[in-house]
Amino acid sequence: MSSIMKCIGHSSAEEQLRRRADAIRLQLTQGVSKPFKKIIDLSSGDIHSVGMKPFTFVRQVLAGCLWPNLLASDTLPDDARRRAKKLLENCDGGSIGAYAESSGLAYVQRTVAKFISARDGWPSNPAHIFIASGSIRAITAVLKLLAQGGGVSQTGVLIPVPFPYTLPRVLESVGSVPLSYSLREEAGWRIEMEELQRALLSSKGHCLPRAIYISNPGNPTGHVQSRESIQEVIQFVAQENLFLLVDEVYQDTVFEVGCEFVSYKKVLAEMGPPYSHTVQLASVHSLSNGIMGECGLRAGYMELVNVDESVMLFAEALLCGDISTPITGQIALNVMADPPKPGDPSHCLYKQEVEYRQNTLKRNMYRTAEFFNTLPGFHCARVQSGIFIYPRLTFSPEALTHAQGLGLEAGLWYCGRLLEEEGVCVGVSECVDEAVSHCQPGSSWHLRLCVLMPPDALEEVLYCVQAFHCRFLKEF
Amino acid sequence: MSSIMKCIGHSSAEEQLRRRADAIRLQLTQGVSKPFKKIIDLSSGDIHSVGMKPFTFVRQVLAGCLWPNLLASDTLPDDARRRAKKLLENCDGGSIGAYAESSGLAYVQRTVAKFISARDGWPSNPAHIFIASGSIRAITAVLKLLAQGGGVSQTGVLIPVPFPYTLPRVLESVGSVPLSYSLREEAGWRIEMEELQRALLSSKGHCLPRAIYISNPGNPTGHVQSRESIQEVIQFVAQENLFLLVDEVYQDTVFEVGCEFVSYKKVLAEMGPPYSHTVQLASVHSLSNGIMGECGLRAGYMELVNVDESVMLFAEALLCGDISTPITGQIALNVMADPPKPGDPSHCLYKQEVEYRQNTLKRNMYRTAEFFNTLPGFHCARVQSGIFIYPRLTFSPEALTHAQGLGLEAGLWYCGRLLEEEGVCVGVSECVDEAVSHCQPGSSWHLRLCVLMPPDALEEVLYCVQAFHCRFLKEF
Repeated sequence: MSSIMKCIGHSSAEEQLRRRADAIRLQLTQGVSKPFKKIIDLSSGDIHSVGMKPFTFVRQVLAGCLWPNLLASDTLPDDARRRAKKLLENCDGGSIGAYAESSGLAYVQRTVAKFISARDGWPSNPAHIFIASGSIRAITAVLKLLAQGGGVSQTGVLIPVPFPYTLPRVLESVGSVPLSYSLREEAGWRIEMEELQRALLSSKGHCLPRAIYISNPGNPTGHVQSRESIQEVIQFVAQENLFLLVDEVYQDTVFEVGCEFVSYKKVLAEMGPPYSHTVQLASVHSLSNGIMGECGLRAGYMELVNVDESVMLFAEALLCGDISTPITGQIALNVMADPPKPGDPSHCLYKQEVEYRQNTLKRNMYRTAEFFNTLPGFHCARVQSGIFIYPRLTFSPEALTHAQGLGLEAGLWYCGRLLEEEGVCVGVSECVDEAVSHCQPGSSWHLRLCVLMPPDALEEVLYCVQAFHCRFLKEF
Repeated sequence: MSSIMKCIGHSSAEEQLRRRADAIRLQLTQGVSKPFKKIIDLSSGDIHSVGMKPFTFVRQVLAGCLWPNLLASDTLPDDARRRAKKLLENCDGGSIGAYAESSGLAYVQRTVAKFISARDGWPSNPAHIFIASGSIRAITAVLKLLAQGGGVSQTGVLIPVPFPYTLPRVLESVGSVPLSYSLREEAGWRIEMEELQRALLSSKGHCLPRAIYISNPGNPTGHVQSRESIQEVIQFVAQENLFLLVDEVYQDTVFEVGCEFVSYKKVLAEMGPPYSHTVQLASVHSLSNGIMGECGLRAGYMELVNVDESVMLFAEALLCGDISTPITGQIALNVMADPPKPGDPSHCLYKQEVEYRQNTLKRNMYRTAEFFNTLPGFHCARVQSGIFIYPRLTFSPEALTHAQGLGLEAGLWYCGRLLEEEGVCVGVSECVDEAVSHCQPGSSWHLRLCVLMPPDALEEVLYCVQAFHCRFLKEF
C-alpha cells in the first residue's frame, strides 16, 4: 500500500508541475521574459500540441458533417463526402447538432463492432459497445460499477506500478482500494504472476479484490504482453473471480520487430470454455492515445464481454449520466474504426499518413533511447510500443543532499528546473518498490516523455534537455 | 419533501418513456411495423433532431478549424476564415486535436467575458469563467462544491417545482437534500417569497440550506422574472446566507412583448454594496438550450461572482476532473458569444437565421397554445420564453379509474399511449402540491413539448396529438 500511496503523491507532484507550466504559459502571453518562447508539454501525450498534423480524411469527413454545403461540391474527395452523408443520415434530424443515444450513435457502435470482429477474428456485438467521452470516462464507469462495500468488503482493484499517470485519481474518485502489483524494469516490465498473487494476498484484512486493471501495450513502460502472458492473466482472474479491465489504448503503436498486439478479447475467445463464457472483461480504446491522437475531440469506446445484461444497463446510465459523448468525437471514432479501403480515393493518402506516423514514432523512439543512453545518469531500456519513453535517472549523492536541503523531492526538483529553465514539461516518478526492484528508493527516478512529434521538433527538445542536464551535472 | 420525491418519481417515469422510445426506434430500424415511420422526441428540447437547421456561420468556422485546407481557398466567407485562423492560433500546436486547459481555452473564456460585459454593462473577469461540457455539468460542479455534512448538517438546496427535468438526478448524484418551493400556474409561475420562506423552514431538523437553484427564464414554465423579483430573491439569499445558483440557459428565447431577460449578475451589480460584494452567484448558460441548439457539440459556461479564489480552484478541478470540454463545442461557444458584426460578410445571413428562428419560436408557441386551448381537457397559459410549452391536462373520472385499474400512473399511461400509437414522445409531470395550488393531486398533469421546429413539422405533430386525443376522449 505504501508504494501506491507514494505514487499518488507523485501523481499530484506531476499536477504541480503541470499547474506551474500553466502559470508560465500565462506569463508568456502577458509578455514576461523567459529563456524560451513556449512550453513544450511532453508529459500528457498530446501529440497535436507538439506539432503532429491530423489525418486528412477524418478532418474532411468532420468538415463535411459540420457544414453539409461542402457535400454539394467537389471540395472534398468523393469517399469523404459519402462517409459524411452516411453519418448524417444516422444522426437524429440529419444534424450532428442533435443529441446521440447515451451509449453512442448506433451506427458508430456497429462500425466499432465490425472493427473489433475483423481485428480479432471473433464476433463483436454492437450492443456491447459503449461510446464514451474518452477512455478514462469508460474506465471510471466500470470501476464505479464494481465499487461496493465498506471496510474489509470494500472493492480492491489490482493495479500495476508504474501505471498510467491518470489512474490514481480515477481510483480515488470511485473510492476503491488500489492493490499494487509491481512491474520490474529488470524483467522487461512484463507481468509476473508471483506479483499478482502477492498483490492479492496484500488485500487480506482490509478490502475485497474484485477487479484487476491491465495496461497493454503498457503505459508508461511500452511493454507488449505476449499471448502466453495474457493466457496466464486470464487463468488467474478466472481462478480468483476478478473482473478484467484492460486498457488497450496503445494497440496501434507497437513498433518493435517481433512484437504484436493481441487483444485480451481474442485470447479469451481462443481459450474456449469455461474461460470464454465466464471471464468478465471490459476493454477500452480511444481517439486520444496512439496514432490518431485526436485528444481535443474527446471520444473512446469500451467493449463489455460476458457481462450480465442488467449490469450493462447500469453501465449505460453511468457512462452517460450527465453527458452524451460529443458527436464530433464519435465521427472521428467511426473513421478510426473504418478507415478508407484500397480503391477508395482517400486510401493512398490515409495509408501514407499512418505509415509516416508509425515510422516517425519508431525513429524517434530509437533516437531518444540512444540519446538518453549517452547522457550520464540516465539509462533507457528498449521500448516496444506506445508514444512515451521512460528513461531511468540516477542522481549523485550531492544532488540528493542538495534537494533534501531545499526540502524538495529530488525528481520533482529536477523536472521543475527543466521546466523553468528550458520550458520542457516531462512526467516523473520515483522508483518506489525496493521489495521487487533492484533500485533503491530515494535514489532513482523515471522520466516520462512523449516522443511522437516531428523529428526536428524532437531534436530541439533533446537539445534543451542535454543543455540543461549538462548544467545540472556541472553543479552536482 | 413528498412533492419533490414524487417529482423524482416522475422524472424516472420520463426516463421510462424515453427508454421505451429508444426501444421503438431500434424496432423501426429492424423493420418492425408501426403506425408511424419515426419517433419525434419533443421532451428533451433537441431542436436539430426535429428539423431545425444549424446557423451557417458557426458550422463554417468549425469546418475551417477542423480541415484548415479550407482556409486557403474562398470556399468559406472571409470572416469565417479569419475567425477559424484566430481560434486555431489559440489552440496548442495550432490544432483542435490538442487538449485545452481544464477551465477551457483562454481565448474562449475571454470571448464569453466580453459577451457578458456587453450584455450587462458591468465587467466580467475571464478568470471567473469556466467552460464545461454543458450546463448540467457546470451545475453539478457547483452543487458538489456546496455538498457537505451529514444528518441535520447535510446541504439542502432550494429548488422550484416544477423544475427542469434533468435537475433531480443532479441533486441525487451530489447527495444534497432538495427543499422544494412551489411555483403556481395561477400566479403566472412567478417566484413567491412566502414559498421560499416555507421551503427554508421545511429544512428544520433534517438538513442545512446552503443554496438556492433558480431557473430564469423558467424551464419548463416559460416565465421571465422581473427585475423586482430578482431583487427580492437577492435580498432573501443575502439574508439567509445562501449560495445563488442561476440557470439562465434560456436567456435568448424571450419572445413575449413587454418581457425582457435581465441577468442576476446585472441586478446584483446594480443593487450595490453590500449585496454586490457579498452574494455568491453562479450563472450558467449553454450551447444546447435556446436559439443555437447545438446539443451534440456539448459545451456551456459558468460565471462565478464573489466566490473565494481558493474555492474557484476546486471548481476548476471538479469541472474538469476526467474530461476537458470538447474543443468543437468551445468553438461554437465562441461564435455564440461573438457572432458576426454589422459590416462582416456573414452578418446579414446570421441575423436572418437568428430572426427566422426567433419568429418561428414565437409563431409556434402561440399556435400551439391556441391548439391546446381548443382540445377538451387541456388548458394552456400564455408563455413568455423558452422552447417548451407546458399545457395542463385534466382527465375524466373514467380515464382515472381505468388507469388505476391498469396499475398505471395516469399521465404516464396517457403519454405512453401517445408514444406507442403516434410515435410522439413528450414530457409529463403530475400536479403535486395541493397546499399551494388549486389543482387536486391525482387529477391534473402537465405535458412538456418543445415547439421550436419547422412550422410544417409542428403541424404534423399537432395533427398526431389531436388524432390521438380524440380517440382517447372517445374511449374515456
